[in-house]
Amino acid sequence: MLNAVPIAISMGDPAGIGAEVILKAAAEIAQRRGPMPRLVVIGDLRAMGAAARRLEMPEPIEWRIGDQLPARPGPLAVLNLGRLRAAAYRPGHPNAEGGDAAYRYIVEGARMAMSGEAAALVTAPISKEWMNRAGHNFPGHSELLAKISRTKLWRMMFVGEQLRLALVTVHIGLAKVPRALSVEKVQQTITLLAEHLHALGIARPRLGVLGLNPHAGENGMFGSEEPRIIVPAIKGAQKAGIAAFGPLAPDTAFCRSDGAFRFDAAVAMYHDQGLIALKTLEFDRAVNVTLGLPFVRTSPDHGTAFDIAGKNRASAISMIAAIDYAWRATAGYN
Amino acid sequence: MLNAVPIAISMGDPAGIGAEVILKAAAEIAQRRGPMPRLVVIGDLRAMGAAARRLEMPEPIEWRIGDQLPARPGPLAVLNLGRLRAAAYRPGHPNAEGGDAAYRYIVEGARMAMSGEAAALVTAPISKEWMNRAGHNFPGHSELLAKISRTKLWRMMFVGEQLRLALVTVHIGLAKVPRALSVEKVQQTITLLAEHLHALGIARPRLGVLGLNPHAGENGMFGSEEPRIIVPAIKGAQKAGIAAFGPLAPDTAFCRSDGAFRFDAAVAMYHDQGLIALKTLEFDRAVNVTLGLPFVRTSPDHGTAFDIAGKNRASAISMIAAIDYAWRATAGYN
Repeated sequence: MLNAVPIAISMGDPAGIGAEVILKAAAEIAQRRGPMPRLVVIGDLRAMGAAARRLEMPEPIEWRIGDQLPARPGPLAVLNLGRLRAAAYRPGHPNAEGGDAAYRYIVEGARMAMSGEAAALVTAPISKEWMNRAGHNFPGHSELLAKISRTKLWRMMFVGEQLRLALVTVHIGLAKVPRALSVEKVQQTITLLAEHLHALGIARPRLGVLGLNPHAGENGMFGSEEPRIIVPAIKGAQKAGIAAFGPLAPDTAFCRSDGAFRFDAAVAMYHDQGLIALKTLEFDRAVNVTLGLPFVRTSPDHGTAFDIAGKNRASAISMIAAIDYAWRATAGYN
Repeated sequence: MLNAVPIAISMGDPAGIGAEVILKAAAEIAQRRGPMPRLVVIGDLRAMGAAARRLEMPEPIEWRIGDQLPARPGPLAVLNLGRLRAAAYRPGHPNAEGGDAAYRYIVEGARMAMSGEAAALVTAPISKEWMNRAGHNFPGHSELLAKISRTKLWRMMFVGEQLRLALVTVHIGLAKVPRALSVEKVQQTITLLAEHLHALGIARPRLGVLGLNPHAGENGMFGSEEPRIIVPAIKGAQKAGIAAFGPLAPDTAFCRSDGAFRFDAAVAMYHDQGLIALKTLEFDRAVNVTLGLPFVRTSPDHGTAFDIAGKNRASAISMIAAIDYAWRATAGYN
């Protein structure tokens, strides 16, 4: 039943690699045997068509809310939200018109996912700069989706082949991180991550929680956040039945001299603490997941890549992984 | 000439894996053909002997300052600094006597290196906790060696197979990092690193300098340290003829989707920013180098590993790399 409802994919910045990686991902998925997700792109039909011609792929077709999607995919279906001027989707030349359009695709995607018209939302990369220049001031997708869905409690999560992790804080300056941490926020992150993994079929996920300071504070020698905040949060999570461990020394937490990462997932205190490890291990194959939203939302872990847009050089690996993860999360199997 | 002067190796905590990895490393190096470094251990002769018997290796012999070392190594030479009680070097059972001894080995090693009696100092791991409990309050080797040698300007550097990096700040709580940065400190780090690489034979090293904040501040959206501190430091270094680039977004700086890290070395603003990437990429194979001391000092990038001490399970890979790097740095070839 759920699989008959499409997964919506917002096209992202029209001057970026969004259209290209969506087309490539959809074509790759369509090759498979067995069940597969049905996909709808929220974007601009002509921009998608131009990208398809560059890739020598079939032209996408227009899709309207309520239209049935065939079980076996034909041409890619596009919900056409207004018409961009051709200059707005010229590869590698971002502009405010495109930044505004990228914003509207996300808003519509969130609406569809909240109303049940879409089973999940996958978002192609946007340019924060151009979205902001178009008057929409958000640091990123997650913050915008949280606002649209009136979600107060959400977290960013990343899933790679070797590593899953959730972040307690995200897009703030490093100087603000220590004051932004609290027992409640750390414990909420642990809980959201555990619930998500549980829903994916991991009966009792084991979570490794990182410290904030070098060597996790080395028994209070550097910083007080471990005993004051992180240890109480771990204990609180343990009391709630979650297998949480730590605080781990951040630098060795992702070091696998024994060849196996010891936890099902990690909780990092700040953006770069988690993402340096993730991007170093996973390059750009990882999937970004927003925990806590009232719907499943994933995205590839790469940017608009304006420098290679329109050149048929973008890899769809991360977009395929984002679609598959969303499909798996909505279908509820692991 | 330089190679006739031995490289001194401080034995580290007597209850840790120091003696074991030194013996294994020396045995491995002695197998080689061609020139090799001459080695002297600064430690306890009986503790070294007990470790050798556990490994079924030849007993080390006592060495005194001024003794000649053979060109082809025989039994390992040990400068015997006092006598530990047997309980002090029981593997896996650290104690204050051992912590004090580990401190004295380092002090003597620094003296030898400064006087020219040793060509370089390689340090086996110590327990900061037990060194502190013995009344010697230092966060680590580097701080102690800086104090002994009255070095004000020094930095920690790490060298792995894939990555070299230097750190602007080290053993301080994360909350103190932003205020600890200055244009001068960042530029000094760039300069020390460039000079070191130059001395190793890299004619014009290319250095990637990381930002402090997520996405290197994303044009001032998160934090002001990039425009205020890091950019001026990079420009200052460039004016001095150093090929420094940045600020790089920290999370993608170590991401090699194109299969090649783009710089000869990186400059990280704080401990975990650099070491999460290093330890994730290099496991425990990396070498720790102190820049700015009046002598060459390296160490393996692992700890005392009390849990596996005495069990013949410790890998000497990092100790071998530390000895070889010290030898190369003193011999001045790349």
